[in-house]
Parts: sequence; structure tokens; C-alpha cells
Amino acid sequence: MKRISLLGATGSIGIQTLEVIREHPEEFELVSMSAGRNIVLCRKIIHEFQPELVSVQEKEDADRLKSEFSSVKIVYGLQGLEAAAVFDKADVLVNAVLGSVGLKPTLEAIRSGKTIAIANKETLVTAGHIVMEEAIRNNVTILPVDSEHSAIFQALQGEKEKNIERIILTASGGSFRDRTREELHGVTKSAALNHPNWSMGAKITIDSATMMNKGLEVIEAHWLFSLPYDAISVLLHQESIIHSMVEFHDTSIIAQLGTPNMKVPIQYALTYPDRLPLLSGKRLNLSEIGSLHFKDMDLNRFRCLKFAYDAGRAGGTMPAVMNAANEAAVAAFLQDRISFLQIEDLIEKAMEHHIIIGTPDLETIQEADRETRNYVNSVI
Amino acid sequence: MKRISLLGATGSIGIQTLEVIREHPEEFELVSMSAGRNIVLCRKIIHEFQPELVSVQEKEDADRLKSEFSSVKIVYGLQGLEAAAVFDKADVLVNAVLGSVGLKPTLEAIRSGKTIAIANKETLVTAGHIVMEEAIRNNVTILPVDSEHSAIFQALQGEKEKNIERIILTASGGSFRDRTREELHGVTKSAALNHPNWSMGAKITIDSATMMNKGLEVIEAHWLFSLPYDAISVLLHQESIIHSMVEFHDTSIIAQLGTPNMKVPIQYALTYPDRLPLLSGKRLNLSEIGSLHFKDMDLNRFRCLKFAYDAGRAGGTMPAVMNAANEAAVAAFLQDRISFLQIEDLIEKAMEHHIIIGTPDLETIQEADRETRNYVNSVI
Repeated sequence: MKRISLLGATGSIGIQTLEVIREHPEEFELVSMSAGRNIVLCRKIIHEFQPELVSVQEKEDADRLKSEFSSVKIVYGLQGLEAAAVFDKADVLVNAVLGSVGLKPTLEAIRSGKTIAIANKETLVTAGHIVMEEAIRNNVTILPVDSEHSAIFQALQGEKEKNIERIILTASGGSFRDRTREELHGVTKSAALNHPNWSMGAKITIDSATMMNKGLEVIEAHWLFSLPYDAISVLLHQESIIHSMVEFHDTSIIAQLGTPNMKVPIQYALTYPDRLPLLSGKRLNLSEIGSLHFKDMDLNRFRCLKFAYDAGRAGGTMPAVMNAANEAAVAAFLQDRISFLQIEDLIEKAMEHHIIIGTPDLETIQEADRETRNYVNSVI
Repeated sequence: MKRISLLGATGSIGIQTLEVIREHPEEFELVSMSAGRNIVLCRKIIHEFQPELVSVQEKEDADRLKSEFSSVKIVYGLQGLEAAAVFDKADVLVNAVLGSVGLKPTLEAIRSGKTIAIANKETLVTAGHIVMEEAIRNNVTILPVDSEHSAIFQALQGEKEKNIERIILTASGGSFRDRTREELHGVTKSAALNHPNWSMGAKITIDSATMMNKGLEVIEAHWLFSLPYDAISVLLHQESIIHSMVEFHDTSIIAQLGTPNMKVPIQYALTYPDRLPLLSGKRLNLSEIGSLHFKDMDLNRFRCLKFAYDAGRAGGTMPAVMNAANEAAVAAFLQDRISFLQIEDLIEKAMEHHIIIGTPDLETIQEADRETRNYVNSVI
């Protein structure tokens, strides 16, 4: 029985994690969780899964839940999030919160010796050097939940790091895959939110359209698999069937395939190094799909991917700045304050404006994050 | 340093095995070998690789070589083949001889404790139950050299057998992939020998066109991976880029990909569980290829594949009978004695004519093989 602490339980990954737990009650138990402001769903989850500790974003929501669930410990805010992450009965932390708020609880959970299943991109993007160092020091395994990183992690089982030539992250191309840059002027929010393959939250769907999502994944892969950026490629693959690949120096490539279904990587992270049947999973039928397509990635077309390689190679505070600028710009786009292409311009501006600090500590990273958000909002 | 005994050194797989040895002189050494009747090439190999023991098919060839190479032990015939297989200084036997003659030397090598890299299909097809039992008894590893089985073997690294849902062997479709059965009447030998993706020997190229090659691989896979026939699928994939796949019960699929290059699985068998750089290998460029295609296999179109599933499920002497009938029929086709479609008819007839003997010993298998060849030649 694995006892799970789930941060971000009401989000897209959180809900699917709960489905995996529900399908294997003899294997998994939810012992603590966090939610944001979706109290209706949070209440349902508490009823069904009976966690011992629940953290929500706001004090007023916490107070309301306290009066409803007397046997559950209800906490709130950033401190509550950390309490849920390090809850002593949990073996595994599934970190599925959105944004840079996920960093601190991950570090605390690593220090408390928990296995980390990481769906929160910002943790590794902004502070990969700190997180991986802490993981090594505490002998903690970091398991990827992203479908791409899970694919690479699966492809690497039984293989030696020294034999890796490169990894190849596949990218669907997002909502605007077939449009030229010229055709991106004036695209609407609803068009950007219409992803062809994956059903995900708004922020990540916009990140897919700008290709920043893949950029964040490149930086994550750098840290997760200890690979230089030259050994990380991105390939357009519109069907999202090959989730990613590893090329070895004997030219052999190992790939992981499947229907686009986040429950596969979520469950793999929870069962690793074993597998369990996926009860609700649709099996891949390649003859039904008929063909798979591949195209080189154009860094002039998808500028955010170039920003990510640049930020990753620059290192220090730069990935955190790029990430914060992107979060601020995407939020502004979702509020109809800027156009789609302005997202890229704002990230570029923020990166140009920033003076890098090498091997920053947590506070320096958080300071760079805050400054960048302020800067982006000041120039909109 | 691995010391290698190579049976079938002058054939297609043999030559490529020698290339791998040549490219890694610090890793591999050829200590014994066998050749058939290509004495010109055999002489060149002896000059370059200086093996200690060489076996050829005919006594007269052996006598000639003896006079040329006084420091090399030269033997011949079936006894010579076995002597090369069990040569005491060899760690690994690479069995790349064609046909059922490969069986006995493999068994002897297993009994002498050598690791077996098996490219000879007939060994497992005709006597899988004996070979695998001997391998377990002698704690010997059987490594596949076929690109499909190597792909599955690679995909299974770090995985547990219990989690396998099925394996998916890919098939290019061979020379006549896009022809209907009606269009196969009167096809010529040279058309059948023109394989779209792989450059191989004549027998295996015809087997690809009839799909018997895939049928033999299905039976081999049954023995190599201890899987029931229901868990072995075949998928048409014309580009031969995905060499085969394993589907696990969580719906995740692990595949091995690469350019069609037999040196990759040959080298993997020799370096397993490690990998070495493939010096002369062309890297796969998926964007250059653009797309990969998949189609269901039609057992009415490719009757030989159905025969193989039938023979495998029937067990006993039936796979040996099917294999012998196929060898005799393909030989007759290559001698212009029968038409292409008659290959199938002859195999069907031979299987209908045979009365199965369950769990046969080696002699019973060889007797069934002989009888079948005689029967096929008697009805042509």
C-alpha cells in the first residue's frame, strides 16, 4: 500500500491521479491533499477519499470545511500546502499544483524523504540545481509525471546513462500547429484553448500553442536526466502517439507509445518500477490511426522554444525569469489584456532586461520571479 | 574481451557480424567459424581474423584450406560445424547458418555453457521446447539477433514478464506487399527477390514475400519470450522503422526503432546488457522519413502467416513440418520448378498430410523434417 499526498487535487492531473487511486484501492491511499479555490470539488474528494489532512488556498474556505469535517485536519495557504506535502504518513508526494508555488513544498518533501512524483514543471525549471542536489543528498527518487518525461524514463529502464546519444521530446504542435507566424496575428483566446490531442488546463494549453510547454520540458529533461541541452531534441509529431524517445549511441531508439492519456504516466509514477493494469485505459490501435507524422521543429516559428534553450543554457536565474515572464504574459492573454504574439515579445523583453545571477538560492529565485512579474505587468 | 564462434560466417548475417567484430577489436575476437562453399570469402576471413578453428561444408575444401593455413585447425561437414560451435575458447556462439542444420550445433553449444546469439530461425521453430529447456538447465542466455526479436528483447529490459499484455511484431510486407492474391499469379523470381527495405539472402527474401518469415518469427517469439500465441500480434508497417513493440497491461507500449540495419541487433546481442557506439551506423531521421504507416495483417492474403499460427498452436512436430515444407518449396521456386503461389499450397498439403507427434525428441524432429522434404518433392 502506497500512501499518497496529492497537491493540486482539483486540477486536471489531480483529478486523474484520484481516478488511478480509485481504481486501485488495494494499492493506493490518499492521506493528504491540497486544493485551490474549488471547494465544491474539494468537499467531494474529502467525502470519497477521507484524507487525514487537507489544505486549501484561503482561510475562509478552510474555516468552512473545518465546520463540515470535524475528523479531518484542515489547513490553508502556503504553510498549509507545505504541511500537506510533508504529511508524515505519506510515502509519495504527487505534486500537481500549477506555477512556481509548487517549488517550496517539493523541497520540503524531499527533505522529509518522500518519493516525488512531479507534474509541476516550475519546480525543476526554476530550481533544478537545488532540487536535484537535495534529491541526491536525501536519496530520494524524482519520478516524472509529464507524458514526455515518463516516456523517456520508461525508455531508459534497463539502460545505462553513458550509452545515451540524445533524447527526443515529441511535440504535437498545439492549437496553432499549421499556422504561419503571420497567421498568428489576432488569434483568439478560444482558438488557442482548443488543443487537438490533449485535454488540459488553460495555462498549459496556451503554453502548448506557444511551444513554451515544450521549452519548459526541455529544461526539466536537462535536470531529470542530467543531459546537456545539445543532447535534447524536439520533434514535431502531430498525433501525440509516440510520447518521446531515447536514442542510444548504437543508433537504436527506444520509444514509449500510447493513446494520449495522462493516467498512464501518472499510474506508472505510482507503480514504478512495476506496472499495474490500467482499468479504464484505451489501448493503442496503430492500424486504426494508420500513420504517424514527423517534422523538424522550426525555432523561428516557435520562438518560445528558442527562449527556453537560451534560458536553460544561460542557467542561474534565467529559467525562473523566463518562466515568470511566461506565467505573467499568459495570465494577461487569458484576461484579454494582450494579443497571442505579445506573449513571446514580453518573455523576450523580460529575459533581455534581466541580469543573471549564477547558482541562485531559493530566495534569489523567488525574488527574480517577483521582479519579473512586476516588470512584465509594468510594460504591458 | 568476448571470444566469438561464428557459424555461417560467409552469409549475410555472418558478414555483418564480422564487420561488428572488425569495428571493435578491443571488445571482440573471432576464435572459431564455419562457412559453406564460398571458399574465396572464407580464405579472406581467415587471413583477416585469424580464427583458430574453421569448419567448411566439404572435405575437398577443407583439404585445400589445410594446405594453405597450417596454423589453423580445419574441419568439415556436420561434425565440423559442431566442433566450431563448441570450440572451448569461445564465450559466445553466433549461429547464423541457414536452415535446420543449425539446430544440433546450437544444442551442443548450450550444453557446453556458451551464450547463444541466435540468427538461425529453424533452431527455435523446429525444436523450441528442447532448446529452451536445455538453456534453462544449463543456465545459458539465448540472445535474439533478428531485428524484430532484438527489438522486443530491448523493449523488455527493466520490465517484468507478468506485465506484458502482448508483443507486436512488425512486418514490412515484403516484395509483394501491395499486390492482391490475384496479382500474385505468375510473379517472377526476380520480382520476389526484390525486397523494399532489407538486403538479405534469397531464402529469407522469399520468406518475406510469402510472409512465412513473419510466421517463423511468431513461433520463435513464442519460445524466446514464453508467450502464448494469443499474445503475439503482427502489424504491417511498410517502412520497417519500428522493428517491433511490447504492449504492457497499463496500455503503455515500448518500441525499438532505427534504420533497417542488421548490425544494430547483431552488435546488441554481442554487447548485451551494455551497448557500444555503432561506428558505421546511419542514425534514424524521422523528419526526413516524414511518416510511418500501419495496417492490419490479413491472414487470407498472407496464408503462410496463418499456417505458422496453426503450426505453432498445434505444436509437437508440426512447426518442423511446416518449416521443412517451406524450405523445400522455396528451393523449388528458386529453381523455377514451381510458381510463387504453389509455395503456400505445398506447405498446406504437407501440414495436412502430417500426423503430429507431441513433444518430439531431436531424432523425431529430424525424421519429420526428412519425410516432409521427400513428400513435398514427390508431389511437385
